[in-house]
Parts: sequence; structure tokens; C-alpha cells
Amino acid sequence: MAKGQVAARAARPAETDRDALLARFRAVRDETMALAAHLHPEDMLLQAMEDASPTRWHLAHTSWFFEEFLLQRFEDHFTPFDDQYRYLFNSYYEAVGARWPRMNRGLLSRPRVSEIVRYREAVDQRMDALISTLDAARFAEAAPLIELGLHHEQQHQELICTDIKAAFGLNPVFPVAFPLPGNHPEEPEATTAANERWVSFEGGLHEVGFEGAGFHFDNEGPRHRQYLEDFALHGTPVTNGQFLDFIEDGGYQTASHWLSDGWSWVQAGNIAHPLYWHEIDGAWFEFSLHGLIPLRRDRILSHVNAYEAMAFASWAKARLPREAELEIALRESDPGEGQFLDPGGFVHPHLAGRDKGLGSAFGTVWDWTQSPYTPYPGYQPAEGAIGEYNGKFMSSQLVLKGGSCATPRGHVRASYRNFFPPDARWQFTGIRLARDL
Amino acid sequence: MAKGQVAARAARPAETDRDALLARFRAVRDETMALAAHLHPEDMLLQAMEDASPTRWHLAHTSWFFEEFLLQRFEDHFTPFDDQYRYLFNSYYEAVGARWPRMNRGLLSRPRVSEIVRYREAVDQRMDALISTLDAARFAEAAPLIELGLHHEQQHQELICTDIKAAFGLNPVFPVAFPLPGNHPEEPEATTAANERWVSFEGGLHEVGFEGAGFHFDNEGPRHRQYLEDFALHGTPVTNGQFLDFIEDGGYQTASHWLSDGWSWVQAGNIAHPLYWHEIDGAWFEFSLHGLIPLRRDRILSHVNAYEAMAFASWAKARLPREAELEIALRESDPGEGQFLDPGGFVHPHLAGRDKGLGSAFGTVWDWTQSPYTPYPGYQPAEGAIGEYNGKFMSSQLVLKGGSCATPRGHVRASYRNFFPPDARWQFTGIRLARDL
Amino acid sequence: MAKGQVAARAARPAETDRDALLARFRAVRDETMALAAHLHPEDMLLQAMEDASPTRWHLAHTSWFFEEFLLQRFEDHFTPFDDQYRYLFNSYYEAVGARWPRMNRGLLSRPRVSEIVRYREAVDQRMDALISTLDAARFAEAAPLIELGLHHEQQHQELICTDIKAAFGLNPVFPVAFPLPGNHPEEPEATTAANERWVSFEGGLHEVGFEGAGFHFDNEGPRHRQYLEDFALHGTPVTNGQFLDFIEDGGYQTASHWLSDGWSWVQAGNIAHPLYWHEIDGAWFEFSLHGLIPLRRDRILSHVNAYEAMAFASWAKARLPREAELEIALRESDPGEGQFLDPGGFVHPHLAGRDKGLGSAFGTVWDWTQSPYTPYPGYQPAEGAIGEYNGKFMSSQLVLKGGSCATPRGHVRASYRNFFPPDARWQFTGIRLARDL
Amino acid sequence: MAKGQVAARAARPAETDRDALLARFRAVRDETMALAAHLHPEDMLLQAMEDASPTRWHLAHTSWFFEEFLLQRFEDHFTPFDDQYRYLFNSYYEAVGARWPRMNRGLLSRPRVSEIVRYREAVDQRMDALISTLDAARFAEAAPLIELGLHHEQQHQELICTDIKAAFGLNPVFPVAFPLPGNHPEEPEATTAANERWVSFEGGLHEVGFEGAGFHFDNEGPRHRQYLEDFALHGTPVTNGQFLDFIEDGGYQTASHWLSDGWSWVQAGNIAHPLYWHEIDGAWFEFSLHGLIPLRRDRILSHVNAYEAMAFASWAKARLPREAELEIALRESDPGEGQFLDPGGFVHPHLAGRDKGLGSAFGTVWDWTQSPYTPYPGYQPAEGAIGEYNGKFMSSQLVLKGGSCATPRGHVRASYRNFFPPDARWQFTGIRLARDL
Repeated sequence: MAKGQVAARAARPAETDRDALLARFRAVRDETMALAAHLHPEDMLLQAMEDASPTRWHLAHTSWFFEEFLLQRFEDHFTPFDDQYRYLFNSYYEAVGARWPRMNRGLLSRPRVSEIVRYREAVDQRMDALISTLDAARFAEAAPLIELGLHHEQQHQELICTDIKAAFGLNPVFPVAFPLPGNHPEEPEATTAANERWVSFEGGLHEVGFEGAGFHFDNEGPRHRQYLEDFALHGTPVTNGQFLDFIEDGGYQTASHWLSDGWSWVQAGNIAHPLYWHEIDGAWFEFSLHGLIPLRRDRILSHVNAYEAMAFASWAKARLPREAELEIALRESDPGEGQFLDPGGFVHPHLAGRDKGLGSAFGTVWDWTQSPYTPYPGYQPAEGAIGEYNGKFMSSQLVLKGGSCATPRGHVRASYRNFFPPDARWQFTGIRLARDL
Repeated sequence: MAKGQVAARAARPAETDRDALLARFRAVRDETMALAAHLHPEDMLLQAMEDASPTRWHLAHTSWFFEEFLLQRFEDHFTPFDDQYRYLFNSYYEAVGARWPRMNRGLLSRPRVSEIVRYREAVDQRMDALISTLDAARFAEAAPLIELGLHHEQQHQELICTDIKAAFGLNPVFPVAFPLPGNHPEEPEATTAANERWVSFEGGLHEVGFEGAGFHFDNEGPRHRQYLEDFALHGTPVTNGQFLDFIEDGGYQTASHWLSDGWSWVQAGNIAHPLYWHEIDGAWFEFSLHGLIPLRRDRILSHVNAYEAMAFASWAKARLPREAELEIALRESDPGEGQFLDPGGFVHPHLAGRDKGLGSAFGTVWDWTQSPYTPYPGYQPAEGAIGEYNGKFMSSQLVLKGGSCATPRGHVRASYRNFFPPDARWQFTGIRLARDL
Repeated sequence: MAKGQVAARAARPAETDRDALLARFRAVRDETMALAAHLHPEDMLLQAMEDASPTRWHLAHTSWFFEEFLLQRFEDHFTPFDDQYRYLFNSYYEAVGARWPRMNRGLLSRPRVSEIVRYREAVDQRMDALISTLDAARFAEAAPLIELGLHHEQQHQELICTDIKAAFGLNPVFPVAFPLPGNHPEEPEATTAANERWVSFEGGLHEVGFEGAGFHFDNEGPRHRQYLEDFALHGTPVTNGQFLDFIEDGGYQTASHWLSDGWSWVQAGNIAHPLYWHEIDGAWFEFSLHGLIPLRRDRILSHVNAYEAMAFASWAKARLPREAELEIALRESDPGEGQFLDPGGFVHPHLAGRDKGLGSAFGTVWDWTQSPYTPYPGYQPAEGAIGEYNGKFMSSQLVLKGGSCATPRGHVRASYRNFFPPDARWQFTGIRLARDL
Repeated sequence: MAKGQVAARAARPAETDRDALLARFRAVRDETMALAAHLHPEDMLLQAMEDASPTRWHLAHTSWFFEEFLLQRFEDHFTPFDDQYRYLFNSYYEAVGARWPRMNRGLLSRPRVSEIVRYREAVDQRMDALISTLDAARFAEAAPLIELGLHHEQQHQELICTDIKAAFGLNPVFPVAFPLPGNHPEEPEATTAANERWVSFEGGLHEVGFEGAGFHFDNEGPRHRQYLEDFALHGTPVTNGQFLDFIEDGGYQTASHWLSDGWSWVQAGNIAHPLYWHEIDGAWFEFSLHGLIPLRRDRILSHVNAYEAMAFASWAKARLPREAELEIALRESDPGEGQFLDPGGFVHPHLAGRDKGLGSAFGTVWDWTQSPYTPYPGYQPAEGAIGEYNGKFMSSQLVLKGGSCATPRGHVRASYRNFFPPDARWQFTGIRLARDL
């Protein structure tokens, strides 16, 4: 999902009913705007680094997607909203033509946010009309692409959160992106006993990859067989407190815990703690989307990269899970339950759960796996520009699973494959330990 | 003036009259805000490169100057407007403490522009009170510093123009910073005959450097003697048309015209024309503060660096003037006459003049000299932080003279020494040829 | 094998007989020196890039290995040959202490090559004595480490070839590293018909990883099960001629064939052909260890990276093999047969074979796989410094299999896992196509 | 002299007598080879940084100069020694054609040193013949160019010393470039009283620049008038001991002593002492061409750049001299006296002298001036490639005067203008304080 890429393999439209699709279209598009409710136009221009994009760009690019792949193809007398937008708001689709360099997205204050909002509104109206008026055959053709566009937009909703956090995280005044919800309860301290629980799974010849009806990205298939040994996963993700123990035990100074690349990264950057942690007068704080907050030991750890995750696992005499192990384990949980993106709510990892089974299975933080992101046997990207979504990033990235507190509810499932390079830290990425049995 | 640095050597307050100083204070401060009248908060965050700053930063830093050097020292019960502003809006004063890294000024969307405007207003009110109520002895002490602050602010007015031009110049939609004045006349074509005129000056033992009453920066003195040979200056600055001839004659491809550093710069950047020039379908255009406009051959050339200026001079079988030569020549013109910054007016070099004597002597474009920026014999920077203004930049820069169309009227004089590195192009910098007699 | 890392899992010494081990020790050490026979001391200082090392450094480092891991541990009254060598010739073993920065290996002309040769001789004599005199228990302990050291040295023999080729390849006089053997026959043109042959293999639940007696590296185990679909491999590796077809068909200009990272690499470097290819007056040449030679269409292609391999496979409507697929296929060939490193012989890929079965299975060129280099289930690196060999590089690299014309004969086997980053081109790396059945 | 550039303005041949010129030619050429007597071929390949060149390159390039500018023009049937040498050993002459990139000079081990020595010998023989047989008219034309070539070669003799020192200075074994002379006496401790002496000079209208007969470079003229105020120069250059006082007084930590560029340089590189100084177990050592030696307080300081020189002067409440001041002062000393390059002798600054007048006026260390390197009024570079020597480097460099312990005796004079960028430290550069009277 790095850079919000998508590509669907929806054999049949998930929602053939126009009204349902229209309602869903409006809902998703509105949720995007809701995320920006407390940001000012000047905030929306910030680009913290090449990998992150300004909020304004996300607002425009998600609209560009519908214009480029739906309106242009299905409208009767298509004229572009603005000729230059095709160039300015393309992300990386080579087949679509040239594009504005990614690292310079923060240099464009024009078109203004107000113009981008008008662009969104125009696209929304035309999509509304399209969904309502296409004849049945054309609608059947368009519906899966619309569905794809909505999942694409949900991916960008998560990036809006993590990209503005990366930008605000550089500002010494620690700006607040989302006001803390008024009803945010003081959370009780979690018992540490909860953290000593392992859940076992049986190995053997498993089928992995998406199966069934409903939307999924092309990289989740084809369904195929993999042989696994017996394994166990930890009942909860790693907490801040556990990671503090690693730090205090010299984890960042012990080469033997680290991959060679990871050790170089630690030394080059003089890294000594997760991203967004601040030690102020002897106390630890976390920068969050709600501003600077005290770091609680019993919260679930986030914003570590794969090098840190693997070093922690080495220190804990465990390992990271394999992609297929997590997929099999996640099948036993409900992908609709968990801490997901809740505009107006708390967008930061909550306390480590004390459930039975796999606690915090979906949501809260993405779990790093040890599995490089590679094509499944028989995988073929789609023809044309849409085929550029997933396959072309299958190099030097690792799979993450399960979704985070910034993922829209309903967006993930057990077979969902998110991916980021091993040194990425600005997503809500955490650690779920695994071990052989 | 790179980075707007200043340091005064005003032996006596130039304007001891409170009312006059107050009026001038209000006028200069208002002119700064007037420059931003057509910019949106999102525009004011743009930072095109490390050497340029966001408009918002200029608005804040010029206020910080008065708070740091005046209010803090002269107010009875000084409390800072905001503790963090001292860190965020210091430019480069080591003596004043740490500061936010210059290249990251564009990463701060907070404090918002509206908060910075409130900061300006608060500083204005407190400065107003200070000027009105200080006792005579304290006023005599404060007045030269206030005068210095106003000249410092005028330097930043020019930078507001050139820095937003640098930022907008990167945007493919060519935004307009200043609306074109409604009464902007269609200029008549200048006769090229005007461009063949040289003005001679006598050499000998000259005195150079500031002399007399009135404000001047510390680097303009001490007045001292220099021996010069007879020389001539061209009657007009180089025009776009003349520079096009240089281009068409292979100027950018002929190593022998270039300094070694300049030739490396041309080759590394594949440079083939001045900054902001665009060739579109065979016709030349210039990006200006008023948007993209057709390039006219009879306009005065701007946005070339010293390497380009020297290469052009070599091609034209002439040379750049020495600093002292230009100073002596400029003494014969009126520093109040010429094309200067005119908020609401045309902020782009106009036609080459057809005057007698030195045409376009002051204003329009800064003239590159061949003289490195070095201290005059006997120069001593002031004690304390104020002493950091000019002296510490006397390395690897060249002197420029005469002011530009973005310089506030009344800001320059014959002894004024502006300075930039030889590769800088984003100021309104042009070429005045010189030759030996 | 990047950087020559090693780590053995020899449960029992492969050669418990002292005489045999001694003979093998002397033979391997002598072969290293034989590779440098035609290089001058000044050649041996060349370091083409950070990833490559000077010949002199390989000569010293392989001796350092025996001093550090054998002599220091097993000699009765160990004293180091030279205190500074421990620092200068350590490659990357964090547990052993600080080391000279890798990218600066080419800056050390002292100790001189003649001193390094004396170092080798001293280590050889002391190792000779050690092997001959250790008591049985100690010998049993030392023998697997000696065996490891010899395999480590063989890896550096290959790097001596590829690193000097990288250095000489930068010199416009095209130096000859190895004289062309006098009896080098004019090879007959291969029939292209040979290139249309596919060999099929059955899928199902396979065991992969090393099994049996004899030396192997730790990363080749543990033996474990993997499920594979039916697949086919091409009967011969890709030839220069086939790759020329790809080039002429616009392969380097067609984004859709490339991974995103690969496309960036092509564009940033303006890449248009494999490493060491030169087009001179319309004819293609290859720089080889024997100097510049005409490029023959029927020779096996080498010096492409994984991006180029994958782009070619996409163009050919095929794919790269998976690691396990190649391992299973290679089991049917004899690892002692093929084109291997032959000091005094031809060290450049020969003609594409016309065998039945898998032609050129072992030797000639390393085959890129699509499989990232990751630990096998249950893999645990050894304790201590020796454990740093393989595991810590399991990040952002791909597995290659089969050995090359610069690999010492007898060094590889079906389960051997070589690994390099996807952008590496200076090894003898080629392409074997695979497809689903 | 950065990069050994040269260009003569010898109106008439300095030595029209063939025998004298021939003798001088042989002597200078031999001295170059004598400098390399204790270096091995592998040492001669070292290139410490882009600004430094391998010894082998200096040996070849100085021969290339004679081949390119003398043999090619004056030999009857010129054929190049080797076609590729013209490309490989050109330094920076654009007019002569393409050249091997400077930063990659250390990547060429071929042609071998022995081949380069043969190249030198062949050029020597052909030059010998040329000098002996040219007719009178042609000889008169050639002689000044030969003289130029010899001065050019002397400049490279100094660079051979400083470039190999830069390379050996990176090697932790501290190699010895020149054996310490057997008769090197233990020097007596200098009295510090000697260091408190200032020598006064009268200002007024002075003539500066070369005048008279004999060789000089083009940049030393034209002779012209400059007006100077009265000034004083310190009787001795700054010593190591004085600079240690600066260090111990926090000189490297006090921003107010430094130019802005210098302060950035100190902070970016974490600089805390001159180049080649090493603090080992609480004692200071200097790396020298004779290996690591104890640092003596009474030796003359070397290997500081202009930033350090200016910071020291600021701390000492003095300033650096202007170029013209030093030239006038040096006229009163004998340019043949002083510590110059003495192959087989001590090539490191000796004790601070205790002379009357300007001690250590010529030789020992180059004195940084505060004067940027600019053309004298009326300066015109020569036509053609020879004109590329001096003029094209007149940007962002400072003038140094007086020669050093690595300058060949007889090479410098009062009007000699050496130049380096303000951050260069690898030459024997020191500090002579000046002050206003």
C-alpha cells in the first residue's frame, strides 16, 4: 500500500446495486474530507519527505483517479476539469504519461486548496451522474473500477493521517492534527500478565491468498498452497514498556541483534528510540496526531521499522511471523473488529488488549512480517495502467498485515498484503512475535 | 544583503524627531504587509531552496528583529510574545542562541500566518509605545537601532519579492504574485542605438566608502583611498536582446568565455539561458512576478549570475566594473530616481533607458561587479550580536551595486554594498559592462 | 556471497585425514596466488567502488581469517603477525572489533603487496604446523573451521576476478587481467535452434535445503518442505543475441517491463545495455578479463542485474525461477561439470550449450532467481563472530544459484545460496527463464 | 597554483643560451624523479581526494605538457608517444580536448609507472634534441614556453609532496614518504621572546606586480598602482604553540571568531585542530612526510585553511595581511633564502626564526592573505590553451604568498601569486599576522 497503490481482481462487482454503490461512494468521499476538517490550507501543503505527500495532494489525487479511470472512459462527452491536473496529480502511472516529481509535491501552493475542493466536488457530481445513468452493461463494467477507486481512496485516508503526522512531527510546537475526543476516557493500566500468552497454530499444507466473493486487490491472489511448520504467535503486540526494556538493555547498541543493513541505519542516524518518542527531563513522551502525550508502558508500540522489529525479536529470543502464518492466524478473527480509523476519535494505538486468542488481531498497528513482498505463484498484473498498482513494487519491501488505528474500518481482511521498505517508520507499524513449536 | 543582514554605523540618529520616526516606522511596516496582499496563507509557506525563505518567515523574522534588539532592551517589563519565536525566527545570529535550521523553514505551518500577523501587530503596538514614551537619553540610544531595523525590513521586502518568485517559478501553472497594474502602458520599442554609448570616468586617487550624515551600513566604511585607472561604463545595462545574441552565438557552449567554476556550473546543470526564461514553441517568455510574459528584446536583462555576467562580458570584449568604479560613477546620479519597488506597480525590469549619462543608474537591476566582498581597510564589526550582520559574510561573495526594481525606493545609495555568491540567480541581477581606457 | 561471507554447518569434519586437509589447504591457498600472477602491485590497489575490494585486500583478508579464527584459538603461544592487521583486514565482523572503512580499502598502499605476501606465507607455515601437530581432539574441533576458511577463500577467489574486472573496466586502455590462453579455440557458431527448448519439472511437496555429508554453509539448512506447482525451465541460459533482440525491441525504454525500482535505476543511470558492453563504430564489444573482445550473439549473457533479468523475462513472456525450483532442477546435474574458474584458462562465459536436459546447469553464469534471500524455517546462525556470516545479510538481496565461470570448481552444489542486491551487475550473473505449466 | 596551472608573460626568453636552458631542463626533470625515489609503484597510485592527484599522474602530466605545447608544435615530424596519453594526462585544458575525469585519476593503474617513466625518458630525449637543434628563430619562440614548462613542473613538484602527504595521512600505519635525513640535527628550543616582534611598513601609493627581466606568470602583471595605509607585519609566522593557545582558549568553539562559511565548516566536520595533528594519550603529534613526529610548540604552524587563519587572527586581535602588503614587505628579503624543498632533506616547517626584519619571509609556509585572487587592472590571459592557466581560476580563491618548505628553491618571488580556496588545508599553509598602524 506504499504510495496508495491499488489494483483489483473483483471478478464480479461487489455491489451491483446502484443505490448501494452511490451511498458508499458518497460516504467514502466524505470521510476523506472529514479527516482534513481541522487542518488549515497552509498545513495541507506540508511534505515531510519524499515518501510522504501533502494533504492537498491526497485530496486531488484520489479525485484524479476517478477522473482518469472512470470519467474519461465512461462519460459520453468527457472534458477534463483542468488539463494540467492530469500531470500534477498522477502519482506514478507511467502508462498515463509524465507527472510532477514526487519529492516536489510540497512546492505547489497552486491550485489552492479551495480549488482542489472544487475539483473534488465536480468529480463527485459527475460520478454521481455516472453511477445513476450508465446503462446496465456499462455499469457492470464500471462498478469494479469504482469499487477499486474507493479502496484506493481508503488507502489514501490512512496516508493522510501518517503523512500529516510526519510533517507535524518535525515542528517543535507539536501541532495537533485531530482534537482529542472529549469523551476520551482515562484508560486503566493493563496487567502485564496479559503479555505472556502465546497462541499455537498447526502447520501442514495450507491454502493462502484470497478466496470467495467481495473485493480484493490483485496481489492477494491467486489462491495457492504453502507448507508451514507448526508455529505460535504472541497473544498481544509488543507494548511500549517491553520496547523500553529492550532500549534499557542496550538493544540499540548491540550489533548482534541487527541485520547488517539495520545496524548501518542505526549508526548512520544515531538512532536510539522509535520515531516520535521524546525524552524530556527524564520522562518519555510520544508525539501523536493529538499532540504530545505522555508515553504509557501499556500502550501498543508503533512507528518502528522492520530492522527495529527484527532486533527486538532477536533480543526477545523470538522471530517475526511469516506472511502466511499471520494470514492463517487472522482468519480466526473478525476483520471488522478492532481499533480502526475513527474520524473524530482517538487515532493512536490504545492499550494492549487482554482478550483470549489473538489480541488486537486486526487494527491498532500493522504487524511487520519477515516475508519480502513477492508475487504469488501464477500472479499476473492487469493489463494497462491499472496493472501498475501492485506488481511493480515487488522489490525490497516487506509484507505487513492486519491494519492499524489509521486504517478505515472494513478496508482490511486476512489476505490483505500491505508492504513497505524495511526502513520505513512513519506508518503505524508494530511488532507481533512468533516462534517455532 | 544576502539573507537580509544589516549593521548600522549611524553616528547620530538620522531622525531624532519622534513623530518622523514613528511615521516612518508605520510606513515601512505597512509596506511589508502590502507585498503579501495577494498571497494566500498556503503561498506564504513555500521555500524554493535553502537560500530562500517563506513569506511568512520574513513577516515574522522582521518582527523578531524589533522584539530581540529593541523591545527586550528598552521595554521596562519585557516579556516575550512567545518563548518559541526567539528560536523559530532567528535567522543566523549565533550570539542570540540556537535557531530553527534555515533549510527547514518551509516545514513549519504553525504558527499560522494569522498568528504571525497578530505577532506583527503586537510588536507594532509595543514599538509605537516605545517610540512615543522613551525618555530622551534612551530614545537617542534606541533611534539608530530602530532605523537599522527599518533598513533591515526593507532588505526583507526585496527578499519577499525574490523568494516568492523563486517558489512560484517552480510551479508549472505560473502563479501571479502581484496583479499587473491596470494602467500598465504598452511600452514603446527602445531604439537599439541607445545601446552603443559609453561613459568615461577619470582615474586617480579616489576616496571610496560612505561619507556624510544619514544612515549607512557598517560595511560601507571606513572611507578610504583607492587608486583607479581611467575607465568607461556602458550607458545602459545589458538587454535581453543583447543576451540572446550571446546565446545564439554559442555563448553557453564556449568554454573560453567562462571561469572554471562557471563552466562546471554550466555543464553540471546543462544551463542554456537565464533563470526564468522559457522557450515555448519557438518563442521566448519570461516568468515574472506578474506571471508568464513574452520576453522583449529591449527590456533590461535580469536573473543572471556572476558567471554568466563575466562570460557575457568576455564575449562582448569588455569586463565587469570594479566596485569602486561603480561607486564613483553612481555618485553622479540621484539614488531616489529609477525603477524601484512599487507595491501595486510593475515589479520587473522595464525598458532600457535612453538617457544621457549613466542610464538606469539606480534601480531596475543590481549590477554585478568583479570585486569580491571584502572588508574596507580599518573595518571593525560592531560588538555583540548586531556585529554579526555584514562582516561574517565576507567570503566567496561578490559585490553588487545600484539596487533593483524590487528594492524599496530610498534604500540604496552610491556607497551601498550588496553581495551574493557568484552562482546566485534569483535576485534581480544584471550586467553593466566596463572597459579600460 | 556478497562480501565473501561464510558460515558452515559441518556437523563432522568433512576430511578428518590430516594429509588430505593439508594438501587441500595448500592447493586452495596457491590457487589464490595464481590468480594474481599477471597483476602488478599497482593493479592490486584498485578499488572500483565500495562493493569491490583491491586484490591486495583479498590476499590479506583471507589470511586474516585463518589468523583470527584458527591460529588465535588453536596455537599454543599465539602472537599476531602484526597488531594493526586485525583492524585493517577485518571485513565486517562486529564481534571482532573495529575495522578500516570498506570504501577506503583502496587508499592503503601500505602494507605493501610484498608485505602482504609475507603475511600469507607466515600464515601458511603456521597453519601447516597447526594441521600437522594438533592433538586429535583439537584437530576435530579445528578441521571444520579450516574447511570453512577454505570455502571462504574460494569465495574471495571469485571476488578477485570480478573486482579486478570492475576496476579494469573503468580504464579506457582496457587492461588485460588474465592473458588469453594460447590454445583458446575459435568457437563454432551455436545453432539458435538449441534455444527453443524447455525442460519440465513436477511440482508437489518437495524437500529443499542441504542434506547429507560434506561441507555446506549454514544458510543452506535446515532441510524443510516446500510446496511447488509444476514448472518448466529453459534448456539454456539467455544469450547475448537474445538480449540484443530485447534491446533492439526497445526493452530499456519500455516502463511496463520493469519493476518500479528498476525503472528508476534505468532512468537515473541512462542505462541502455549490460555492464561492460561497448558499441564502437556500430559494432558491439565486451570488456572481459582478457581485454576487449567482440561480442558474440551465441555466448551466454552475463553482467545483468535482477532488474534487467526481470525486464527481459517480462519481454519474453516468461519469469525468473524461484529458488526452490532451481534447486530441484540442479539436483539432476553434476556440480563438478561445467565452466568453472580455471586459472590460466578462459574466464568468460562460453557458448550456449546444446545439451539435452538443463544445459549449462552449473558454472558459466549465476542464475538470478525471483526469491529474496531469507532464512529457512528453523534457521539459527552460529554463536559468536562466525555467526555473522550469512544471517545478517538477509535483507533486500536476491538468491542466485549454480555458480559461474569465475567460481572455483567444486565450490557449489544444488543447495548453494549465493545472494546479491537486485542492482548488482559486476558478478557473472545471467538469466535462466522459467514458466508455469 | 591550485592544480599546477601556469602561464607565462616572459617578454623575452630568460635564458637564451641553449646550454644553460638544457642544463636547467635536465636538472628540473631529474628533481621531479628524485622526489619519487622512495615511493613504490603502489604508493604512486594513491589519490586522497579530488583536489589531489597520484604521483604517477604528476610524472605523466608534466611530460604531457612538454609534448603538447612544445614537441607537437616544434618537432618536424611529430608523432605522439601514445594517442591515449593526450586524453589521460591533460589536466583541465578545454581547448586541448576531452580529458579523463580528475576525481578518477586514482582508478588508472595502467599505463604502469614503468611505462610512465619511459614516457618521461622519451620526452626528455626529444626535448633535448629540440633544444639542441632548433634554429635561432624557432628557439627564441620555444624558449619561453620551455621555461614555462619548467616552472609548471616545479609547481607539480610541490604538489607531489602535498598530495602524497594527503594520501599517506589517511593511512593508520603513517607511512614515510621521505626518509628523515641522517644529519637532521636536534633543533634547539626557540625563545618565545622572538615572537613578540612587529615590523612596520609605510603606506602610500605603491606599485605592485612584477617588474623587470626574468620569468613570471601572467597573473603577476600588469604592474599597477595601489594605495595602502601604513601597516605592520609580525616578525615571524604563527607557531604551533601559539595555535595551541588558541585551541585551549576555545578558539574552535567560539563562533564570533569565524566567518559564517568557516563556522559552518567547523561544525559540519567537527573540526578541533589543524590537519595532520593527532592527540595520542594526551600528547600532540604531527603527521609529516617523514612519518609521525612529536608536535613542537616552537615549530612554524602549517596546514591550516583561511578560515582557521582568520579565526586565529581575530582571536589574536590582529588580521591577515593584504596581498599588496605582503608583496611590498617581501621585496626586502632575498627570495633565494629560506627553507625550500630539498630532496633528501627535511620537508617540514622548521623552527620559527629569530632573525631581524621579516623572519621566515620566503619558504617554510605559504602565508594566507585576506585578498581574493582577482585579475590586476589590465590583465588579459594569453591566447589559446596556454591562456587557460591562471585567469580562469579567479573565483572564490584567496592569494597566498612567499612559498613553503615544499616549494623548489628559486621558484618564487615577491610578486608570485599562489591561490587556493579558503577551505584548503593540504598545502603547507600558515599564518602571518598583520595590523593597522
